[in-house]
Amino acid sequence: MGVTQIYVAVVGGGEAPEEHRRQAEAVGRAVAEAGAVLVCGGLGGVMEAACRGAQAGGGLTVGILPGRNRAAANPYVAVAIPTGLGEARNALVVAAADAVVAVGGEYGTLSEIALALAAGTPVVGVGTWELARAGEPDGAVVRAGDAAEAVARALALAARARPGG
Amino acid sequence: MGVTQIYVAVVGGGEAPEEHRRQAEAVGRAVAEAGAVLVCGGLGGVMEAACRGAQAGGGLTVGILPGRNRAAANPYVAVAIPTGLGEARNALVVAAADAVVAVGGEYGTLSEIALALAAGTPVVGVGTWELARAGEPDGAVVRAGDAAEAVARALALAARARPGG
Amino acid sequence: MGVTQIYVAVVGGGEAPEEHRRQAEAVGRAVAEAGAVLVCGGLGGVMEAACRGAQAGGGLTVGILPGRNRAAANPYVAVAIPTGLGEARNALVVAAADAVVAVGGEYGTLSEIALALAAGTPVVGVGTWELARAGEPDGAVVRAGDAAEAVARALALAARARPGG
Amino acid sequence: MGVTQIYVAVVGGGEAPEEHRRQAEAVGRAVAEAGAVLVCGGLGGVMEAACRGAQAGGGLTVGILPGRNRAAANPYVAVAIPTGLGEARNALVVAAADAVVAVGGEYGTLSEIALALAAGTPVVGVGTWELARAGEPDGAVVRAGDAAEAVARALALAARARPGG
Repeated sequence: MGVTQIYVAVVGGGEAPEEHRRQAEAVGRAVAEAGAVLVCGGLGGVMEAACRGAQAGGGLTVGILPGRNRAAANPYVAVAIPTGLGEARNALVVAAADAVVAVGGEYGTLSEIALALAAGTPVVGVGTWELARAGEPDGAVVRAGDAAEAVARALALAARARPGG
Repeated sequence: MGVTQIYVAVVGGGEAPEEHRRQAEAVGRAVAEAGAVLVCGGLGGVMEAACRGAQAGGGLTVGILPGRNRAAANPYVAVAIPTGLGEARNALVVAAADAVVAVGGEYGTLSEIALALAAGTPVVGVGTWELARAGEPDGAVVRAGDAAEAVARALALAARARPGG
Repeated sequence: MGVTQIYVAVVGGGEAPEEHRRQAEAVGRAVAEAGAVLVCGGLGGVMEAACRGAQAGGGLTVGILPGRNRAAANPYVAVAIPTGLGEARNALVVAAADAVVAVGGEYGTLSEIALALAAGTPVVGVGTWELARAGEPDGAVVRAGDAAEAVARALALAARARPGG
Repeated sequence: MGVTQIYVAVVGGGEAPEEHRRQAEAVGRAVAEAGAVLVCGGLGGVMEAACRGAQAGGGLTVGILPGRNRAAANPYVAVAIPTGLGEARNALVVAAADAVVAVGGEYGTLSEIALALAAGTPVVGVGTWELARAGEPDGAVVRAGDAAEAVARALALAARARPGG
């Protein structure tokens, strides 16, 4: 553990279809198996699935919660950080990460994708938002077909993005 | 002035092409002429143009700044609120608004659109981000062809969204 | 109005004894008469009294609210900024100010005094917290006997603290 | 690990005299030996000493950093959370904790003490700020003579403060 590890945020819906939860669990497991720390918003759906996968893979899970009550964290969060900031905590999930993997997701997830891109933090997407301007697709979110590819790309991009990485 | 007024956030790039700045200025003027308060991120580009328009229309302009230095505000900001929060201040621009008008914009603007949609705050777009999932366009951002239409729609939606409105 | 004005935060209890409310009202009026903007947490007690005084003095009042509902602002707030950050908004009240005047107050007020001192923002106190370490009084909070003296000192210190001031 | 653990924040100066660092190290060790998670601001001085003690005691250390660079964390931080919020992160250190132990400290530490008291989170002090109003000492900070007593009291108070505790 410590400051030399890579931190990967997994973002997605607090309620999510079975397919997204299965993908998120595989992403979490792959993050753990790569020795990286998993960061998320700490709640259910994609966040819970990713934490469950990471714990199964022997990894560390961090949940940065919107409310002030630690008990709101899903049971697979090892380090639960209540903030009381509401949705403004999305900025913290992103700030804590060296790379972001987005699985599906609603508008909160879109805000995390956007905040990451604004900060220059790489984002890999699995079945998530598609962005365009004036009819031109925006290619900033790196597309991955499955969890293994998503994590491999996220880790490679994180290593490149980190100072001295 | 006061708590009964409508607050409209105008979001867009800190550097922006001439066309977006012209539209933002017209949006700002229309916000002011409707008696609403203009909120923005306080910097240049679309933000400055919107403030200039609002001041020309006799309205009040509020800039919620990312840094701690009030002097970073553009000269058309009447009430400059330094925060020191960096990009996390985007959540505050949105929280301060009853409706959001997005003009063009980069990833920071996209984060404001997404945070607004996540909070149930209406968003009207002029030449801004287009969103889709699984190839299906997402219709949550109300499209407007020009500034007058954008502000009319934003005010109508804000009135509907406000408690008791 | 604008970025060249001085902003003075008045901090104190949301519920406050008559004496503190009377002092806060006089502070608010003096801030307005000096042409400065009054910033506060937007709620009742000392905050409401300060806003009432500032409005009576023809000044501008800004309330930075802990919740997301603008209607929680007291009726003398001209510019109401909901944040949804809870008590973390105390840091924003301080960040928005060139000087702080504390009137009485509970622990939230103490946090604003401390955040201001930590940031190098001058603090003037009227009947507020007394600080000591190892039995030695800490003199960082400038004591004032009444509202007129408090505002005069706050404005003088603000002018000195501002870059180029 | 997980949501059932107690989290204790240790707050104090980023630069601190030898005596405070020695006490903080003993506090960190006692927190770890009690099976609690140590939370802090992640930097030097008291924060670093507390983390070193906690790691020596086999415990988990969390550092919530003011900047965006994880590398600013002291080497004994196991989970480093950059925030980019500046001093506003003090509110997060407190929000993450079930109890706070203050060792010495400057104005930033005082803000953490105050934010904790405002939120109803118990605070135990070792050689830290003394508070009074109108000449009357305020007894909210529980005084402890040494690290062992401080941690014992913090854990007892945390258990009482937690919902269901």
